[in-house]
Amino acid sequence: MVYKTKKLAVLGSTGSIGQQTLDIVRKFRDEFEVVGLACGQNTVIFQQQVREFSPRLVHSDAIIPLPDHIRQAPMEEIAAHPDIDTVVVATTGKAGLKPVISALKAGKTVAIANKEILVMAGELLVTLSAQHNAPILPIDSEHCAIWQCLQGEDTPISRILLTASGGPFIDWPPHRLAKVTASDALKHPTWKMGRKVTIDSATLFNKGLEVIEARWLFNIPYEKIEILIHRQSIVHSMVEFQDGSVKAQLSFPDMHLPIQYALFYPKRVSNDNISKMDFSKSHTLTFEPVVYGDYPCLKLALESGRKGGTYPAVLCAADEVAVDLFLKNSIRFAEIATIIEKTLSIHKPIINPALDEIVLSDKWARNTALKAARKEF
Amino acid sequence: MVYKTKKLAVLGSTGSIGQQTLDIVRKFRDEFEVVGLACGQNTVIFQQQVREFSPRLVHSDAIIPLPDHIRQAPMEEIAAHPDIDTVVVATTGKAGLKPVISALKAGKTVAIANKEILVMAGELLVTLSAQHNAPILPIDSEHCAIWQCLQGEDTPISRILLTASGGPFIDWPPHRLAKVTASDALKHPTWKMGRKVTIDSATLFNKGLEVIEARWLFNIPYEKIEILIHRQSIVHSMVEFQDGSVKAQLSFPDMHLPIQYALFYPKRVSNDNISKMDFSKSHTLTFEPVVYGDYPCLKLALESGRKGGTYPAVLCAADEVAVDLFLKNSIRFAEIATIIEKTLSIHKPIINPALDEIVLSDKWARNTALKAARKEF
Repeated sequence: MVYKTKKLAVLGSTGSIGQQTLDIVRKFRDEFEVVGLACGQNTVIFQQQVREFSPRLVHSDAIIPLPDHIRQAPMEEIAAHPDIDTVVVATTGKAGLKPVISALKAGKTVAIANKEILVMAGELLVTLSAQHNAPILPIDSEHCAIWQCLQGEDTPISRILLTASGGPFIDWPPHRLAKVTASDALKHPTWKMGRKVTIDSATLFNKGLEVIEARWLFNIPYEKIEILIHRQSIVHSMVEFQDGSVKAQLSFPDMHLPIQYALFYPKRVSNDNISKMDFSKSHTLTFEPVVYGDYPCLKLALESGRKGGTYPAVLCAADEVAVDLFLKNSIRFAEIATIIEKTLSIHKPIINPALDEIVLSDKWARNTALKAARKEF
Repeated sequence: MVYKTKKLAVLGSTGSIGQQTLDIVRKFRDEFEVVGLACGQNTVIFQQQVREFSPRLVHSDAIIPLPDHIRQAPMEEIAAHPDIDTVVVATTGKAGLKPVISALKAGKTVAIANKEILVMAGELLVTLSAQHNAPILPIDSEHCAIWQCLQGEDTPISRILLTASGGPFIDWPPHRLAKVTASDALKHPTWKMGRKVTIDSATLFNKGLEVIEARWLFNIPYEKIEILIHRQSIVHSMVEFQDGSVKAQLSFPDMHLPIQYALFYPKRVSNDNISKMDFSKSHTLTFEPVVYGDYPCLKLALESGRKGGTYPAVLCAADEVAVDLFLKNSIRFAEIATIIEKTLSIHKPIINPALDEIVLSDKWARNTALKAARKEF
């Protein structure tokens, strides 16, 4: 086999997944070349990354000083650049949508950690992926687990069992939940994650997005995707095959593992920075059915997924606005669901939306969610 | 694809696995033809099976009346018959060894439920399997789980995590253990199994055999095989890959599933007679390290496996004798280990034994174990 360095663009390189992606690159220097980096506003970390990895192309929402050999370029251009094989999309919200489309059209391998993108535009992206022979690889731990369980299996599957930690409030009674603050919600029991994802984890909204994502990534109908509460975050998901056999993927919860799996796929490599399961100690793993009534944001996400069209885009946009307001202490925890619900309730959906229709729905939903937060309707 | 009926011989057809194999054939009548059946002494069930499946070739240790079109033949002849593709070996003890060798030499697919065979003659069988392009497929639930976890994985594995229910006496204090009777031991908590396997399960001897079996089936050194106590018998085993990711196979404990997997491999088929996991209920799965000191039979098995040569054959023979005596209430539970240990202690091993040397060691060990039981040395 000819030795070939993988040429990467990392979009959203200063976020949690972006930084962990660069940890993997750092660990396996000879395997990767970072050709492009893109960030939002976090210029301090970004400038360190630019110095360390010397990418040829960068993008930042803020203005940063750059040496001569490094060029600023829009994310869409970086994602489609001929010198890049694999685009890691670790942006948040909808920021990565256009770059992903651009990467798929250019036939790149796209490793997606940014679930909103697949939720907003799943059908469109899956179609482009097939048309341009551009694989979409998951970086989420749950989807990576499903992907691993599906290796070497040809027969149709009977269901996906998507695990959810249940968030930090799983055992809180309703009167306490009403008083949850942003700092309560940011104490996630098992995973180290970004702020928005942590809130979406607490409401289980995130799990709803993952169901929609799984539907597109694995081409499986919604009725074959079940959510299980698994508090320990050790089993990252399971697949049941038609003979009743279930495969599960387990590991110490560390996002470096799914990132590395996507970057090296189909090869697995040893990485002593990633903790292994310690079976010299006892482990107890629990699986409980979800009480959907306890998670209104999850219910809204699942309903939007099933309805399809522009509903998922509206769902994501309304959630982004609501979570942002919650993190700024402008609204209460329970209002996240109310704002999403009100926004969805007056949406006029478009079936099989094109990109511009998705973008317009997103914009409409942001304005509408703000109005809902201000109780204007 | 040309439709092709699989032509089976089922050796040990009246035992637990044999009968469950015929359940699968009954469920999928168009997929299989039973060409050969063989049993030991259980002629009542055997005659029903012969009437139902009309095999052309049969073998029974007892004399049975047969219609003209059905011929008695030795198991070695049945196993190598040109009309047979797949030989299911569900015999107990060493009875299946010569037929397996005969089947492998004839290039048959051999599905083995009879673990002693691989333990006694693992190296020999694996060599024949490679020479004659005759696959050996496991029917044990643990090895089937490992096999499933390995599908589609190319990179070397870092360890096998073999699960063990721990048997019915896992929480018994030593003074109670000393008084265990055969009927206590036959109450296995989760699996329906034959009598000898149930006792071997209680001593964890069985798990030691499975470690040796795994060593040969998956060509993995002993130091990479670990045993975990998993009381619920839901996770049938796990494999850890070099990146630290672990795959597990779970299912409702029912031997029909591994039998069916081996018979249909690589296809999976739906079988509504096999219960699926019910995730609408909560599940708790526990994994505990083994306290080796509590299981002297397990220790003896692992030591014999590591020493190799004729030790594993002596191990199996001595255990067969000791368990038989225990089931007849002739010895106490704790004496099973003592008899095996005494027999092994005076064995003069042969390295890389040929079949006749294995057979002689077996015979020697049976006599020696009886002498040990009679406290003659």
